[in-house]
Amino acid sequence: MKVPGLLVLVCAASLFANAASQGNNSSLPPAQVPAKTLPVPGDVSPEMQKIIAAPRNPNWNVLWKTGEEWRAAANTQAAKTMQTLPASRERLHVTTKPGTMGGVRIFTVSSDSIPHEHRDKLLIHVHGGCYVMFPGESGTGEAILMAGLGHFKVVSVDYRMPPEGYFPAALDDAMTVYKEALKTYDPKNIAVFGTSAGGALVLEMMLRAKQMGLPMPGAIAPGTPMSDVTKTGDTFYTNEMVDNVLVSRDGFCDAATVVYAHGHDLKDPLLSPVYGDMHGFPPAILTTGTRDLLLSNTVRVHRKLREAGIDAQLEVFEGQSHAQYQFDDRAPETKAAFGEITAFFDTHLGHLSDR
Amino acid sequence: MKVPGLLVLVCAASLFANAASQGNNSSLPPAQVPAKTLPVPGDVSPEMQKIIAAPRNPNWNVLWKTGEEWRAAANTQAAKTMQTLPASRERLHVTTKPGTMGGVRIFTVSSDSIPHEHRDKLLIHVHGGCYVMFPGESGTGEAILMAGLGHFKVVSVDYRMPPEGYFPAALDDAMTVYKEALKTYDPKNIAVFGTSAGGALVLEMMLRAKQMGLPMPGAIAPGTPMSDVTKTGDTFYTNEMVDNVLVSRDGFCDAATVVYAHGHDLKDPLLSPVYGDMHGFPPAILTTGTRDLLLSNTVRVHRKLREAGIDAQLEVFEGQSHAQYQFDDRAPETKAAFGEITAFFDTHLGHLSDR
Repeated sequence: MKVPGLLVLVCAASLFANAASQGNNSSLPPAQVPAKTLPVPGDVSPEMQKIIAAPRNPNWNVLWKTGEEWRAAANTQAAKTMQTLPASRERLHVTTKPGTMGGVRIFTVSSDSIPHEHRDKLLIHVHGGCYVMFPGESGTGEAILMAGLGHFKVVSVDYRMPPEGYFPAALDDAMTVYKEALKTYDPKNIAVFGTSAGGALVLEMMLRAKQMGLPMPGAIAPGTPMSDVTKTGDTFYTNEMVDNVLVSRDGFCDAATVVYAHGHDLKDPLLSPVYGDMHGFPPAILTTGTRDLLLSNTVRVHRKLREAGIDAQLEVFEGQSHAQYQFDDRAPETKAAFGEITAFFDTHLGHLSDR
Repeated sequence: MKVPGLLVLVCAASLFANAASQGNNSSLPPAQVPAKTLPVPGDVSPEMQKIIAAPRNPNWNVLWKTGEEWRAAANTQAAKTMQTLPASRERLHVTTKPGTMGGVRIFTVSSDSIPHEHRDKLLIHVHGGCYVMFPGESGTGEAILMAGLGHFKVVSVDYRMPPEGYFPAALDDAMTVYKEALKTYDPKNIAVFGTSAGGALVLEMMLRAKQMGLPMPGAIAPGTPMSDVTKTGDTFYTNEMVDNVLVSRDGFCDAATVVYAHGHDLKDPLLSPVYGDMHGFPPAILTTGTRDLLLSNTVRVHRKLREAGIDAQLEVFEGQSHAQYQFDDRAPETKAAFGEITAFFDTHLGHLSDR
C-alpha cells in the first residue's frame, strides 16, 4: 500500500511534536497516576490559601505564534497589573521613577527608608513573563516587593521583548544595565534578581558576564528560573494541571519563549541556563514552591550550583505554584520569601569574594 | 424513619475516618487533576532512573493493626535487607560491630579510613521505617552510607519498636544513647542524623533535649522527616500515587505510626515535630526529592527552622520519591546527598556555638 506523501509529512511532524513535548525522558516504562482531588492546604496563611484556591489560569493554553500577538496580549495584562501597583507601592513605602541606563529603559524603584548599610548597594531586577509579558512599568511588581520589604534601591530593567526585540535582546539590555552599574558601584555591592524568565535571565547574565570577562556581582537571587525550555524536568509532568499559574509544559509560557528565541537553539545555555557552566558564579538564593511546574528546574539549578562549589540556598514554599511567593505583598509567605533574600544579600553583599 | 443504631455508628466512624484522612485542609474549593502519565526523567543518573521506574511498593496499603503483625512483616523485610548490606559495606570499606550504650542496643558502624579531623567526632544514627521496620542490624543501611561516604564513626541506635516498645520507647532509647555519648564526646563534636521516622526522631530528640536541659549537638541531618503524622502537608495529595515508596498518606507508614503511638496524641510534637518550638536547634541539613510524599513535611520543617533563626540547608533531588537518595550506594545522587551532609557536618561540627 502506498502512503500519500502529505500523510507521511503530517505523521512525521506529529511524531516530532511528541518528541519535543516529551523532553529528555528515559525509555524506562512511565507511571500511570489516577485522577485526584487536591484540597487547598490549611497549613499556609489565609492570603496564600486564596491564591492556591484560584482556578487554573484561563489563558494557560493560548499559544500565540508572533511577537505582535504576544505584545497585544501583554498590553492587556499590563493594564490590569498597573492598577495594582499604586496600592502596593503605598503599602511598602516605595517610589518608582522611569529613566534609562546606557540607552536601556529602566525604572528606579526605591524604598523611602534605605538604611545606612544599604546605601552603597544596588539591586538589578529583571522581570519575568516568559520573555514577552510585563512591558514597561507593569514589570516592576517584584522590584517594589524587594525594595519595600528589603529597604533597597532597585533598578528594574524594561528590556526589549517581541516584537521590539528577539533573542538575545532581553539579555543584551540587562547586560548593558549591569555594565553601566559597574561604572558607579563596586561589583561586590551589586545583586541581581528576578523570577521565572527573570530568574533565567539572572543566570544567563552570569554566563554572559563570564564570557565577557566582567566581574561577578556580590550575590544573585534567581526565583523559580525558566532554566530549561526544552521541556525537560520531572515536575513538568508531576505538577502538570497542579500548578494553577503555568499549568502545563505545553502551555503559553514555553510557546512565548519559542517566539522570543526566534529560531535560536532552545538548548543554548543562554536560553536554558541549566546547561551552562556555573563555576565561579556568585552566591545564589533560589525560591520555588511544592506545586511549581518549575520546581524541578529550580532544584536542578540548585544542585548544579552546589556541584560547582557555589554557596547556594534553596527555599521551597508549601503548596505554592509558580512564583506565587510574589502574588500578594500582604501574605506572610511573601514577607518570608523576600525576608530570606534580604538576609542572603545582607550576608553576601559588600564582602570581597575569594572566588 | 428510624435509622438503625449500628448504621449510625458505622457512618459516624466513616465520617471520622474521612476527617482524619483529610488532615488540616482549607474549606476553599479543591482542584480536580486529571489522570496522567509520568515518564521516568532522563536528567538523573541511570541508577536513579531504575529506582524511579520501579513499580509502586506492592505493600503500600497493608495496614496491620498490632505490633505483633508489624514485627512479623518487619522481620520478613529485614531478612531481605540484610542480604544487601555485606556488599554495601565492602564497597564503602565499612565495618559493623554490635554493642550497647546505657543498656540500649547499638551498632558501631565505622569507616576503615577516618581522617584525623573526624577522629574526635561521633555521628548518632536513628534509622527509619515508620517506627516499626528495620529491627537489629537491618537498620544500619544509612549508617553504612554515612560512615563510608563521609569517613566517620557512626553509632546506629537499634531502638525498641512494637511490640517490644511503644511511644516513646524509640525516643527514650535514642536519648539514652545521646546522653551516653555526651559522657565522652564534646556536644559540638556530635551530629545526629536519620531519615523518615529517623528524621522525625532526630527532631524529637532535639525537642526532648531542650526539655531536659541537655546541650545541643553540633549539627543534625533530618532526612525527609515524618514531621507531621496528622496527614497534613500538601504533597500528601500532590504526590499521592506519584511517590512509589510511600504511595499514599493512607498507606502503611501512617498506619504503622498509629500502632507505635499506642493511643498517644499524634499532634504531640514528640510524634509530629513540625509543631514543636525549634528555637535553639543546631544547624540542620534536610534532604528530600520532588516526588517525595513528605516533600511538604520536609520544607515545612525547613521553613520553621529558618523562622526560628536556625542555619538550615535544604536539598531537593530531581524525580526522587521518599528517601530514594539512600537506595543505592553506587548512584551519583546518593554520593551527592551524603557528600552534602558530610560538607555540612565538616562546616558545623567542632565549632563553639553562639546559640
